[in-house]
Amino acid sequence: MSLDTVLTRIDTNMPEALERLKELLRIASISTDPAYKADCDKAADWLVRDLNSMGIAAEKRPTPGHPMVVAHAEGPGPHLLFYGHYDVQPVDPLELWHNDPFDPQVEETEKGPVIRGRGTSDDKGQLMTFLEACRAWIAEEGQLPCRMTFFFEGEEESGSPSLAPFMKANAEELRADLALICDTSLFESRVPGIEIMLRGMLQEEITVTGPRIDLHSGIYGGAAINPVRVLAKIIASLHDDQGRITVPDFYAGVEELPEAVRAQWEALDFDAAAFLGDVGLSHPAGEQDRTALEMIWSRPTCEVNGIKGGYAGAGFKTVLPSKASAKISFRLVGKQDPQAIQANFRKMVRAMLPPDCTAEFTCHGAGVAFNLGKTDARFEKALKALTEEWQVPAAYTGSGGSIPIAGHFRDILGTTPMLIGFSKDDDGLHSPNEKYDVESFHKGARSWARILAALTRD
Amino acid sequence: MSLDTVLTRIDTNMPEALERLKELLRIASISTDPAYKADCDKAADWLVRDLNSMGIAAEKRPTPGHPMVVAHAEGPGPHLLFYGHYDVQPVDPLELWHNDPFDPQVEETEKGPVIRGRGTSDDKGQLMTFLEACRAWIAEEGQLPCRMTFFFEGEEESGSPSLAPFMKANAEELRADLALICDTSLFESRVPGIEIMLRGMLQEEITVTGPRIDLHSGIYGGAAINPVRVLAKIIASLHDDQGRITVPDFYAGVEELPEAVRAQWEALDFDAAAFLGDVGLSHPAGEQDRTALEMIWSRPTCEVNGIKGGYAGAGFKTVLPSKASAKISFRLVGKQDPQAIQANFRKMVRAMLPPDCTAEFTCHGAGVAFNLGKTDARFEKALKALTEEWQVPAAYTGSGGSIPIAGHFRDILGTTPMLIGFSKDDDGLHSPNEKYDVESFHKGARSWARILAALTRD
Repeated sequence: MSLDTVLTRIDTNMPEALERLKELLRIASISTDPAYKADCDKAADWLVRDLNSMGIAAEKRPTPGHPMVVAHAEGPGPHLLFYGHYDVQPVDPLELWHNDPFDPQVEETEKGPVIRGRGTSDDKGQLMTFLEACRAWIAEEGQLPCRMTFFFEGEEESGSPSLAPFMKANAEELRADLALICDTSLFESRVPGIEIMLRGMLQEEITVTGPRIDLHSGIYGGAAINPVRVLAKIIASLHDDQGRITVPDFYAGVEELPEAVRAQWEALDFDAAAFLGDVGLSHPAGEQDRTALEMIWSRPTCEVNGIKGGYAGAGFKTVLPSKASAKISFRLVGKQDPQAIQANFRKMVRAMLPPDCTAEFTCHGAGVAFNLGKTDARFEKALKALTEEWQVPAAYTGSGGSIPIAGHFRDILGTTPMLIGFSKDDDGLHSPNEKYDVESFHKGARSWARILAALTRD
Repeated sequence: MSLDTVLTRIDTNMPEALERLKELLRIASISTDPAYKADCDKAADWLVRDLNSMGIAAEKRPTPGHPMVVAHAEGPGPHLLFYGHYDVQPVDPLELWHNDPFDPQVEETEKGPVIRGRGTSDDKGQLMTFLEACRAWIAEEGQLPCRMTFFFEGEEESGSPSLAPFMKANAEELRADLALICDTSLFESRVPGIEIMLRGMLQEEITVTGPRIDLHSGIYGGAAINPVRVLAKIIASLHDDQGRITVPDFYAGVEELPEAVRAQWEALDFDAAAFLGDVGLSHPAGEQDRTALEMIWSRPTCEVNGIKGGYAGAGFKTVLPSKASAKISFRLVGKQDPQAIQANFRKMVRAMLPPDCTAEFTCHGAGVAFNLGKTDARFEKALKALTEEWQVPAAYTGSGGSIPIAGHFRDILGTTPMLIGFSKDDDGLHSPNEKYDVESFHKGARSWARILAALTRD
């Protein structure tokens, strides 16, 4: 076989590949909002049809939440698995989008063409890089160079509640020699790599209730407790002046970076000023005795992802609200225990409640951090393939994001995960006007073709 | 003339009076939200038609905001003015209403019949008590017992921006011997009275901006400043542990209660436990060295009326938001200066901003407190009329609410305002399921008929 003919096929197929991606992007598969349940189903159906169009048998498999898509293709050589997710984040604040988030268009920008819309980068554009590589391979060679399992979920943006149970129930079917996952970024938007360190996550929602009903702030203001003030005080107390998180025992299990990794990261020459400057910031805002790269890759965080209470519409309403709520997430590292942190966080909050206030908690997801530890020859081969495609030395990296599936592959299936992705820092993941560079899409597909070749040849 | 025949006419007219009130209540005249501009206009037109139906010439008068309604009726005796407002508060959270807020219905309750819907108590039901008294008077006597000006505004719930300019521009037309205002409550839902002390108000909206765009909390979390956390810290710092407000010089102009008033208030035997217990509370949450009645009548406050930032919908979104905002109101007393407090508040907030954060402020209204100081024989006559109608000794009271028009009448027109109202503590003003007791509506109309008689007879 010739890898070159596959790469050329990817090049010539690019216009049709972008049209296919747009079809998938037009489906509003927002997993966290029950209003979009039918759309999630539709996205799963679309993937089944797309796999079928390559001659691959695929199935939509039910879960208590959104369905999985599982497909198997026979082939020579090792058994690889590819994972991606077809669900997307919500789109609000909608008014900040310049165009309909679900009417994707290719746009010319100063940095080259991009495709813009919800899910372009996270993760529909990324998962389609792999399918386009497979499509080109099958078109040129009649079959894939290895036995391949495709595994797509539709709940990644809402905590993947069905994922671990499904993997446990179908472990024999899903176990492979290596799991390829495409849901990560290029380092500094230019260096391809394999992520070997990911943060874990604990997602807590807290609702503080004071008065039984909303009150008139003139009649009751002064005498009635205000739950927004109580919640603000709780949030304000979660960090000390040095940016350290104050939840008791929070840092239990947090490990210092090994010297070798620290040295490698220093060699990466991370441009913190540019990283922050891209989004209008200049000052690393985390623990003041840590570097910016540590803040985002190897240190835990506590963030408020959303808050609401009272009247927040146009104009003014002098209400004294009954309730206020916040969504708070913790990014975890090392051996931090989400359950222990949840218990300590809730205990700390309850201890801060003044008379007449109650707090309710909802957990929206919890997962430990992932640290691959050591790599093997396959990782070296993949790095070499990435270096050849991008003409930049590929690197092992860390990531501040949380991809619980990486740990699940290792712990449930005993399958080593290899995380490779092509997003750029300005893609606006989870933000209005999300985009994916056509370069990421195109070179991403070519990268996978090269990696498939590298992993299946001795 | 016979007051009794007027009172009897009010009694027999009650069914039609409730139907008229329902008509006005069906108009969604939410003044703070520009989407309801046409409805505000419609409510003004309805009042013009209703006054016309009594043979009173009335006009809708334009302002830069929602229109005023002004009407004049000739008559013997002194020149009185009546003020009310036809606009209402927004209705969210809509899901907490048991019925459509703009489809008012009379309901039987344990405490007697009520009419339920937005504006029933604040202020459409109250203003109609006066119009029903006038209607009965004209029906029985052919004319009112005095020269009467009617003055209705449609911006009371959004800070009355057009009111003072309109009063200044039309001072000659509006000046009267006494201004009657119906937008207040019965003391403890049973004692009628005249409010002689009202708090002022400063309404500030603050928006804190950190990153230029919403960010992925995995990629940026730890290194990027979070504006919700910054805003929470600002809000948490606005009160000290004893409930005192920490804005510099905030208490300048706050006066201690005169001993005579304090003694009168103690005699009122205010049941703080019942007042708070009605709304599920037990602990007066304001300045810890003050009584509950002081907290709501004679002490200033700082409350958060609304807050928003990030994703607050169903599920969870790991966004690190670009912006967070809060609506904060100060209730003012004595000689507190809204402009000075605004300047000190904004300066304090700006001093708390960490690097990379900015704050924008919008003022939604500012007005000084009102304190009538001393009363005259007309007040005594009105108290006597109220005592006769309610069979409970009527009293002079204070109020935590802010009715800027009271000060405007005195300061712009030189007309003494007399504030009398019939709301009850459980009416749910500004809350879901607002109601007005049919007793308030009926005895309110009868009270005005008695007061008109008392004020126009020697």
